[in-house]
Amino acid sequence: MQLLEERIRAEGRIREGDILKVDRFLNHQMDVELFDAMGREWARLFEGCGVNKILTIEASGIGIACVAAFSFHCPVVFAKKSRSKNLDSEVYRTEVISYTHGNHSDVMVSRDALGPEDRVLLIDDFLANGAALCGLLDICAQAGATVVGAGIAIEKAYQPGGRIVRERGVRVESLARIASMSPEGGIVFC
Amino acid sequence: MQLLEERIRAEGRIREGDILKVDRFLNHQMDVELFDAMGREWARLFEGCGVNKILTIEASGIGIACVAAFSFHCPVVFAKKSRSKNLDSEVYRTEVISYTHGNHSDVMVSRDALGPEDRVLLIDDFLANGAALCGLLDICAQAGATVVGAGIAIEKAYQPGGRIVRERGVRVESLARIASMSPEGGIVFC
Repeated sequence: MQLLEERIRAEGRIREGDILKVDRFLNHQMDVELFDAMGREWARLFEGCGVNKILTIEASGIGIACVAAFSFHCPVVFAKKSRSKNLDSEVYRTEVISYTHGNHSDVMVSRDALGPEDRVLLIDDFLANGAALCGLLDICAQAGATVVGAGIAIEKAYQPGGRIVRERGVRVESLARIASMSPEGGIVFC
Repeated sequence: MQLLEERIRAEGRIREGDILKVDRFLNHQMDVELFDAMGREWARLFEGCGVNKILTIEASGIGIACVAAFSFHCPVVFAKKSRSKNLDSEVYRTEVISYTHGNHSDVMVSRDALGPEDRVLLIDDFLANGAALCGLLDICAQAGATVVGAGIAIEKAYQPGGRIVRERGVRVESLARIASMSPEGGIVFC
């Protein structure tokens, strides 16, 4: 998606440790007009798939998912990093390893919020190792929900997450796919 | 706001410990059409105030803030619970005590994202003790930004947060104000 690639080129900053900072428009300060364009693009790509719920994970996926939901006319559910004392009988629970933050998170979705009647589009800001997306897939499997696909803003295509998730049979639509990235060479899109 | 009060009456659940669960439409599963109506109401209330940025705090404020931003035609910034190793020279930082989760969070906003040129509307899902809102006010003060006011979905008017923040001279517009609440008596709005 040209609009997103242009913003990444103009405002993304490459940092030590394979970090792409896009906090000026995507995951700290958030440009909701851009999110709307992204949502309309996913709606075009997943047209006719019967999406009736969007599932994302806190925190940086929430804004993108909520704006995208306007193009799908459906509610959003976000998987919560577990801090509260919910009983296992009330929630689906899985573990996500964050490579960025170097920790494990227990994430959960209320059983009320997801079930076999749901046709789910997963949405997240980044796809790199695929840990978050695999966690969301696990939660959908527990709920018996159908995963229609995943809408990703930025995929680091040189990392294994995209391959892992696609090999599980999930359709992944990434709006910007980065082939390589370095402080010297800049960003090369696929 | 009648629409929000009706949803709270229909789908809110009162739990032990003064907890109002609204996770079916507000802060876990999220009804973005409702958020849009809330955003339009805040835009009406704060019309002519020159809001050019919305500031919220992760996680449950983000969805409401992003949808509301459409009615203000401005970007959103969310204060992050600090996990990363940003230098103090790069961020404004403050501490927020969560009564719900019983812990302290260090929250931060990038210095790039907020400054003296900003006229800020604060948005959050709940106002009870006012800890989160006071944290956001502190960050705005550090940035030299002007706080136009606060848009709150649900205010527990029997708790001190609303009074504390209004006594600091901040205009607070809560779309549903709860006068009292108990499993026996149900919810009484102001």
